[in-house]
Parts: sequence; structure tokens; C-alpha cells
Amino acid sequence: MEIRFSYSRLLSFSERVFCAMGCSEADAALAAEVLLSADLRGVDSHGVARLSGYVRLWEAGRICATPDIRIVHETPSTATVDGGGGLGLVVAPFAMRVAMDKARQTGSGWVSVRNSNHFGIAGRHAMQALGEDMIGIAMTNASPLVAPTFSRERMLGTNPIAVAVPAGEEPPFVADFATTTAANGKLEMLQRRGEQAPLGWVQDAAGQPSTDPHVLKQGGALLPLGGDREHGSHKGYCMGAIVDLFSAVFSGANYGPWAPPFVSFLPLADDPVGEGLGHFFGAMRADGFRPLEDFKQHMDRWIRRFRSATPVAGQERVLIPGDPEREAEGVRREAGIALLQPVAADLGQLAEKFGLEL
Amino acid sequence: MEIRFSYSRLLSFSERVFCAMGCSEADAALAAEVLLSADLRGVDSHGVARLSGYVRLWEAGRICATPDIRIVHETPSTATVDGGGGLGLVVAPFAMRVAMDKARQTGSGWVSVRNSNHFGIAGRHAMQALGEDMIGIAMTNASPLVAPTFSRERMLGTNPIAVAVPAGEEPPFVADFATTTAANGKLEMLQRRGEQAPLGWVQDAAGQPSTDPHVLKQGGALLPLGGDREHGSHKGYCMGAIVDLFSAVFSGANYGPWAPPFVSFLPLADDPVGEGLGHFFGAMRADGFRPLEDFKQHMDRWIRRFRSATPVAGQERVLIPGDPEREAEGVRREAGIALLQPVAADLGQLAEKFGLEL
Repeated sequence: MEIRFSYSRLLSFSERVFCAMGCSEADAALAAEVLLSADLRGVDSHGVARLSGYVRLWEAGRICATPDIRIVHETPSTATVDGGGGLGLVVAPFAMRVAMDKARQTGSGWVSVRNSNHFGIAGRHAMQALGEDMIGIAMTNASPLVAPTFSRERMLGTNPIAVAVPAGEEPPFVADFATTTAANGKLEMLQRRGEQAPLGWVQDAAGQPSTDPHVLKQGGALLPLGGDREHGSHKGYCMGAIVDLFSAVFSGANYGPWAPPFVSFLPLADDPVGEGLGHFFGAMRADGFRPLEDFKQHMDRWIRRFRSATPVAGQERVLIPGDPEREAEGVRREAGIALLQPVAADLGQLAEKFGLEL
Repeated sequence: MEIRFSYSRLLSFSERVFCAMGCSEADAALAAEVLLSADLRGVDSHGVARLSGYVRLWEAGRICATPDIRIVHETPSTATVDGGGGLGLVVAPFAMRVAMDKARQTGSGWVSVRNSNHFGIAGRHAMQALGEDMIGIAMTNASPLVAPTFSRERMLGTNPIAVAVPAGEEPPFVADFATTTAANGKLEMLQRRGEQAPLGWVQDAAGQPSTDPHVLKQGGALLPLGGDREHGSHKGYCMGAIVDLFSAVFSGANYGPWAPPFVSFLPLADDPVGEGLGHFFGAMRADGFRPLEDFKQHMDRWIRRFRSATPVAGQERVLIPGDPEREAEGVRREAGIALLQPVAADLGQLAEKFGLEL
């Protein structure tokens, strides 16, 4: 069963929850906007469904509501930001702003972040650059749930990459994808429906191919994009590893199996190799490579040519990265956001805990 | 049947062929070294086996042996380089040098390239940064052989991405991968052996899944990493698209289905959207994010932890990106490079054409 909420109602509620955690009003408004951007764009697993998860991390002392977010190392076009243990939802826009300011000055800016927490959807942060005619890049490491090619152990997170490129008359190109075959949220959907997973999504605790969507709770692992060696899983492993290095080894965050879990009931590593979770952001001026008008004109032409590619039988059209999410946003801003009953109940409990109206 | 050649013999021969094309001695030496780096690293499809292909492109007037390679647009940390229609094998190291010089000055450098040709293996160019304690990134677009998710048409190349990260006592991390499930070279191996391809590698001319390794000659296409929608091919499509945009839309090269083919018998598009093929390079100072010693120490720790991950049954160990290629190089520098008989015969014909000794 689903219950429909207006966007503004969920936004306002999330903002008040973050305020109740002790965030400043500005931080609470920003965190709510970033969190809800996932629901708007149809990425239900990363939006308001995670609000109670952030609260539990705060209760466990793993999120600081009033962080000291600051640049700790820099060159004219690079920097490392310490997130002060704050909400990634707040740390990420700060770091992306640093990258954009550097890009404004020197053509590009690249910022690695340590001591942060989960930052919502990567696409939102990459898109922050679009309004200033910049290319935006965002990535993050995450709880270790993924086994590299040939590994029985879970060593990497789903480690998403987002790239946003501004166009002219066409809407921007916005790629935002986990570096695994499928993200955990899709497994949870299969569990609820009692269905099996396709081969290539997960392996069991012994490292053997599996179709059981419950296998992560039994020591199994998600698989890198590609699924198995024959289908190129070493390439998905490379991408997940690159995200981990850029986000955490560059900055001094925890990497690989040391990355802190999102769920507060799992313990932190007792031998951390850094501080908190890591992210990586980039911004490049579109006019750092060619005159802006040329850039936009050719982006439009690229988008139109790909959108008009002959589709295979049974498919209406070839999509441009960002199309489905933009269409979801168009619908949901007006028609509201339908939450699964357990998610709505979860918000109800948060309302009760903090004495708020949902 | 295979015929073994010493590395120095193939290097010298390739250098003399490039000289015979009219390249300067310095360019010929560089081009030969870059070309042979593929054979050394075990990527046989991109090495000396392609030498005659470069010669045919030169004969067709599609490669200029004495190019005017120059920066045509720049900011302190970004640039666009025009390759003057030269060998990508020579243009790429020039552009990578520009990226590294900018990184030396401002922390990072990012260079998009137009009017170039195929540049050999991406990994070689990314690795150019390692000697100066920089992270190196290289990518290129390529002949359109790949169908995006839901497309019947071939719109993208195999569009590889390489990322090299320096370590301390451990050898560097070097990822170098096509953004497709499998590259064309692997299909050719199956053809020679009379074997079928796994599902997820190719589709036929109608856009249906196929296991026929000959299908590319009949209007079929390679598939993006992931293979099909259920296994995340839209993510491989995103990556291939990002490489195309960064390499060609940024610079003013031909993109998507307009990318010029490597084989000289296929015509160029009669409505080009840019000049030649495009590449993209990046360099970031490792000490642009944290002190160099910390950086290297944590790279070592990352590498050692991943290399010691428990392997699945039947596998000896988990590999670090770059391990297999480095091991191949160790063997081949000493023991020589075994060429398939048709490749050796091809070199014999080149020797005859130019009156050279092989």
C-alpha cells in the first residue's frame, strides 16, 4: 500500500526533523532539499525513506548536527574538505561550492572530502554545477557490501558516480549510477515481492553465484557492474575502486572495508584508517574547453542524435542519461510522492519522537 | 601458430615504419614506444598488430605525419589541443604533458583533444603522470561499434577509460578498461577458434541478443558494460557517453556515430560534426589533496588490504587493477612478444612496402 504526500509537506517535515536534531535552520533547509531531491527524481531508496536512518546515526553519535566544515589542504584547483562529521547532505554542497569557486578562478576545481556521512543522491551534487555553466562530477564511497572480482569478502560500497553536463535548448545530460549491477534498493523490492534476483546481481557467502535476494543478510555480497569475469565485472570493480580511492584515500576518510556502515546497529571498524565516509567532487567550466555557445550547440546536437537513434523492437526510444529522473520530477512535484506504508509509518514515529506534525 | 620477436626488434621496426611515413625521428620513436606498450602489457589487439592499420590511414590521407599540434583554448587548469590530424600515438603524450604542466602549476590539468587519431592503449597515457607523483586519467572515443541500451544503431565506440594512481612501496594502481562488456579483439579470438560469444557481449542487426561472434560484420553491435538493461547496461552506456562528451563535444572532435573509423576502407561521415577523433586527459598532483607521504602510505595500505581479500574457491587471489598487465610486461620485456602468424606476415608486407628489414 502506498500513501501520497505532497513534496512541500515532506520537505517541511524533513526540515523540522533536522532542526530537532540541532541543525541550524540553513543547514536543515539544505539537508531537507538535498534528501528530497532523491524522492523527486524517483530514487525512492535514497530519499525520505532514509530520514530515520540519519536520525539513528545522530543518536548513536555518528553524525554531528553542528559540524565545523572546512578546507584542510588546497592548491588553486584542488582541495580536501573535512566535513566535521556532519550530515553528508550538508557537507557535499559545501564541498561542491569549493570546487565551483576554484573552477571559476582556474577553469576546474576538484575536492576530496573526509569525515562525512551519506550525502543522498550523487546526481543532485553534480547538478549543482549546471546553473553556472559548469560540468559537475560527484562520487562517494559507502558501506562495504560489494565483492570485487574473485573476492569472497565485501570490500567496496555501491560507490556511485554522477556526471552532469549542461546543454543549450535541450535539458542537461545527467548520468548517476552505482558501480554495481544493481543497488541494494532493488534487492529489497524483490524481497518484498518474493521474487528471485537475476544471476549477476549477488553472490552467496561462499562467493558462488546466487539468485537469492536475501543473501546479503547471510554474508553474501553485491557484485560489481558486469556481474562475473566473463561479463566484465573486473571493469565494475575498477570503477568502484576508483571512486573509493578518489573519495577516501585522497582525503583521509575510511576506505574499502573500513567505510562506516549507514545502519547504526552495525559497529564501526575498531581500527579505522581515516575519518568518516569520503566523497569526491569536480567542476569544470564548459567554456574552459571551447566557447560556451559552441559547447551548448554541440551538446544539443549530441543529445538529439542519440535520442533519435532507431530503437530495438518493443522499446519506444533511446534515453539520454537523466531523462527518466527529470520526467519523474516533473510528475512528482505536482502529483506528490507516494511512500510505501512502512516508510510512512517510520515518518510517523519520527514525528512522535520529536513532537512534530507530519 | 605464433612467431616470437624481441621487444627491441619490434620497437626498432615500428620506429622505422613511422620514419618511412615521414614522421620526425623523435615522433617516430615516441609513436613506436607508445604502440609497443600495448604488446608489452598483453593488450595484443592494440599494439604492433595495428601498425599496418595506421599506415593505411596515412596512405588514405587521414593521418598527417608532420602535424602542427597546438593548444587552441585554455584556462590555468584546462585546455583544448588540436592534434593537427597526427598520430594519436604522438598527440596523446603531448596533451598529457600539457595536463601535467598545468597540474604542476595549479594542482590539476584537464585537456580535451580534437583532430587526432587512435592513440594506442589508454593506460600508457594515464601512467605518464606517475613519474611526477600525479594521478593520471586518459580516455578516448572510437569508431562507432556499440549500441546504447534500447538502440539498434551503433552510436558509440568502445570508449576506454584509464586511471593511474601512484603508490609508495607497492606498484601503482592502473585501471584501463573499455566501457563495453567485451572489446572487439575478444570477438576476433572467438571467431578464430570457432566459438560462440557469451550472451551480453553483442546484439544482431535487429537489436536482438546474439552469441554469434561474426555479428558485427552483419550490422550487429557490441553492448555497453552490463550487457542488457536488467544487468545494468544503461550504466555502461552512461560511461561510454561520458567518454564521448569529454573527448569530442568538449574539444570539437567528431562524436557518437560521426567518430571516424580506424579501418581505412570505411568512409568518413560526409557531414562531420568536428575534426578527427577526440581524447581527454587529466592529471592531479597527489599532494594536491594530502601530504605525499600520507597519500602513498594509504595507497599501499589500500592495495595490500585488497590483495589479501579472501578469494572465492578456484581463484588464487584478488587482483589489483594493473597487476596482470605489469606481470605480462615483466615477462615480455625479457622473453619477447609472440605474434600470431597473420600479424607477422602483415609486418613482413610492411617491410617490403618500405624496403625495410623486419
